[in-house]
Amino acid sequence: MIAHWQALAAREVPVTPQCAPGSLRTALPSAAPEQPESLGEMLADTWKFVVPGLTHWQHPAFLGYFPTNNSPASVLAEFVTAGLGVQGMMWSTSPAATELEQVVTDWLAQALGLPEAFRHSSGRGGGVIQDSASSAVLVATAAALHRASQGRWRAAGTEGRYRMYCTERAHSSVFKGCRIAGLGEPQLIATLPGTGRMDPDALGARIDSDRKDGFVPALVVATVGTTDTCAVDPVPDIGRRCRQEDVWLHVDAAYAGSAALCPEYRHLHDGIDLADSYAVNAHKWMRTGTPCDVLWTSDSAALTDAMSIAPAYLRNAATDSGRVVDFRDWQVPLGRPMRALKLWYVMRAHGVQGLREAIRHDIGLADRLARLITAEPGFHLEVHELGLVIFRRDTDEDTRDLISRLQTDPTLLCTPATVGGRPAVRAAFGSPYADADTVRYVWERIRTHAQDPEQLSACGV
Amino acid sequence: MIAHWQALAAREVPVTPQCAPGSLRTALPSAAPEQPESLGEMLADTWKFVVPGLTHWQHPAFLGYFPTNNSPASVLAEFVTAGLGVQGMMWSTSPAATELEQVVTDWLAQALGLPEAFRHSSGRGGGVIQDSASSAVLVATAAALHRASQGRWRAAGTEGRYRMYCTERAHSSVFKGCRIAGLGEPQLIATLPGTGRMDPDALGARIDSDRKDGFVPALVVATVGTTDTCAVDPVPDIGRRCRQEDVWLHVDAAYAGSAALCPEYRHLHDGIDLADSYAVNAHKWMRTGTPCDVLWTSDSAALTDAMSIAPAYLRNAATDSGRVVDFRDWQVPLGRPMRALKLWYVMRAHGVQGLREAIRHDIGLADRLARLITAEPGFHLEVHELGLVIFRRDTDEDTRDLISRLQTDPTLLCTPATVGGRPAVRAAFGSPYADADTVRYVWERIRTHAQDPEQLSACGV
Repeated sequence: MIAHWQALAAREVPVTPQCAPGSLRTALPSAAPEQPESLGEMLADTWKFVVPGLTHWQHPAFLGYFPTNNSPASVLAEFVTAGLGVQGMMWSTSPAATELEQVVTDWLAQALGLPEAFRHSSGRGGGVIQDSASSAVLVATAAALHRASQGRWRAAGTEGRYRMYCTERAHSSVFKGCRIAGLGEPQLIATLPGTGRMDPDALGARIDSDRKDGFVPALVVATVGTTDTCAVDPVPDIGRRCRQEDVWLHVDAAYAGSAALCPEYRHLHDGIDLADSYAVNAHKWMRTGTPCDVLWTSDSAALTDAMSIAPAYLRNAATDSGRVVDFRDWQVPLGRPMRALKLWYVMRAHGVQGLREAIRHDIGLADRLARLITAEPGFHLEVHELGLVIFRRDTDEDTRDLISRLQTDPTLLCTPATVGGRPAVRAAFGSPYADADTVRYVWERIRTHAQDPEQLSACGV
Repeated sequence: MIAHWQALAAREVPVTPQCAPGSLRTALPSAAPEQPESLGEMLADTWKFVVPGLTHWQHPAFLGYFPTNNSPASVLAEFVTAGLGVQGMMWSTSPAATELEQVVTDWLAQALGLPEAFRHSSGRGGGVIQDSASSAVLVATAAALHRASQGRWRAAGTEGRYRMYCTERAHSSVFKGCRIAGLGEPQLIATLPGTGRMDPDALGARIDSDRKDGFVPALVVATVGTTDTCAVDPVPDIGRRCRQEDVWLHVDAAYAGSAALCPEYRHLHDGIDLADSYAVNAHKWMRTGTPCDVLWTSDSAALTDAMSIAPAYLRNAATDSGRVVDFRDWQVPLGRPMRALKLWYVMRAHGVQGLREAIRHDIGLADRLARLITAEPGFHLEVHELGLVIFRRDTDEDTRDLISRLQTDPTLLCTPATVGGRPAVRAAFGSPYADADTVRYVWERIRTHAQDPEQLSACGV
């Protein structure tokens, strides 16, 4: 495994695999073996068949999507978690699994500067580890519907009565969560011109008109760091509206939230004291392997009332005492592994200082690339926020041509984007192995693809 | 880790921890460290603070709930998965992660005798790994609503129009999924007297009357192996009704489904060809660590149409070609780790034959305990199905007394149950370390708790 990491760090393997659909399926047997095989064979086959078909998200030149981080501490914790093999659906089914999660989500809330009400120690709210920001927003939606309906929703369903609000820039998971929750499409709130940020007045007006039409406004989802351009919704103004209207405010800071570990980016959390729930993906930008989304709420009673179901086979004295947290009531699944060990190891192995340095390092790399783009004729920097850089060429045709050429280059990965209706190229830093040399390499490739593609064709790209 | 497994196998550690609520929280620092700490410190603290506060689900005398299995192959695979650190939301974001999942879910479908239509190789359906049976039923609900509404649900929500059916014996996750999906409470179908099995005529009558009342019947959830008594709904009769009525049939076989690996229990899958989706928890009874639920559908188009959302930043040539599977559209979350490696390792390390032997071994232990109970005056065997044994004493007071005493005994874990309205004790076998000696030990403890509690009090229990 360490040899694999070294090969990634040295860029000795490509980022993206060169394989056609079906190549692994045809290479493997069509039925499971009847008799046991050795673990050595499996490891060998992993590197022979599987690894060459992977896109390496930890590769320094992986700049696609938003990062999915990792670190040796995270990997070790996954091993220990798997080896212990406990199931922490309730406090009573492994007390330490639950309490460790309370401890580390409180630690992280403090490190991120979240309000006291989001900590278990407050007695009002607390954090819980979900698999993804998608699950976090779905869980928040359930809590919001429960609160907005004063409990009616649990038995009666959504009945076409409740409304959820976001902008078109919200993550796809917000739309998916709204659909899964039986609300159909969310109500789209306009953005302030040229910013991608939700217009709080437009939100207020829509809530007013929906109430007049007999709907129950239940949930607003604001985004801190949209996936397309890393735009930040004006949470303080949105939060005040939500408090006035008694509408649940969920803040999705899946990517950008981690930056608030650093005092210089703490302003990303302005207004967060007005939110009812807040989620950040530690697996995006906190050196923690996926899955590890952390959802906090300042109203855990609404959440657990929304989610709880207690058949006879789950009854136990600790739950009945009301003195413990049962995380089954903070998520969709009943069962759950011990989720907190990974975050505990990562926070200790890096220290909060180390996590801040990682964020600053990645932002520094984005700054470097942004400067190179700005200085280059024929290139236009469209977005430069935190670790995200988006750029285009002079004409859309040239940009599309560059995107196509980049997609055939296995040595780096950028993903396509659309900014202001125009095609663009998107690069987000986050690999633990990326450094200044990575930026130089990536930029040289991009520039050559754009300006002198024949040179790369000659090397078989 | 191996020393820990040896200690469990030898019963040198208790099953349940002796700790009061809050003991771990008060033992750990209230804030994360600023500076890095060593991995060695974390491992030491894990065994010092965390392990003593865990309920050991792999302990041979853990007979609570249904098992959550494990094996060295599963643990190794988690380590490799974490080390590779890829994210397989789409084929293009790690082709081998997606194709390996297609291969192993096809392998398992074949090993379980599921119909051809549930395999990716059929071109109609296929399998996907979810975190839990809870998520599986929620995903099936979305597909059912999409199909029943002919697409209307995606935009319009549930509108109070759609109905879901199950018995009161269905798992709590069925009720939770129904609630989360915005349907409120499911419609409860009566069971055939004294069996706990759904009455297909009652189901048909309810569907008829709901249609007359203007509702749209969308989904029936049948259970193969209920959590309370391991009852099996009559899937062939239910399936025929569902086909006639064009209602989606989801079969939840979370626990009992694994037994169908053995020809002598294959009848558990009778009628499964009439189901639209089917789920089994490999992490329950297939030596695979949690989370690993496998959901299959024979109508993958309905599932992916229900779930898909494709913003610009997720566009890619492979998806556009229609030649690949993108598992983001088979689940609630967008992101996902490489989920299949674990099942691949486990199926190869044990071979299908080895997995069958494990099932037979566990059922054999349940048979032993059942015989001991039957032979003992004052004890009554209530349920004996597969690896599950439920029993009571002569009077409810004696049973409650036994339950209380067992809950104070850290050397074994049975959970309380209610059968026919009467309290009972529930024991489910599944630990890889349990053997005939475990049964002897557990039975001696139970008998002594019931008949000669002073003897145990003397040893401090």
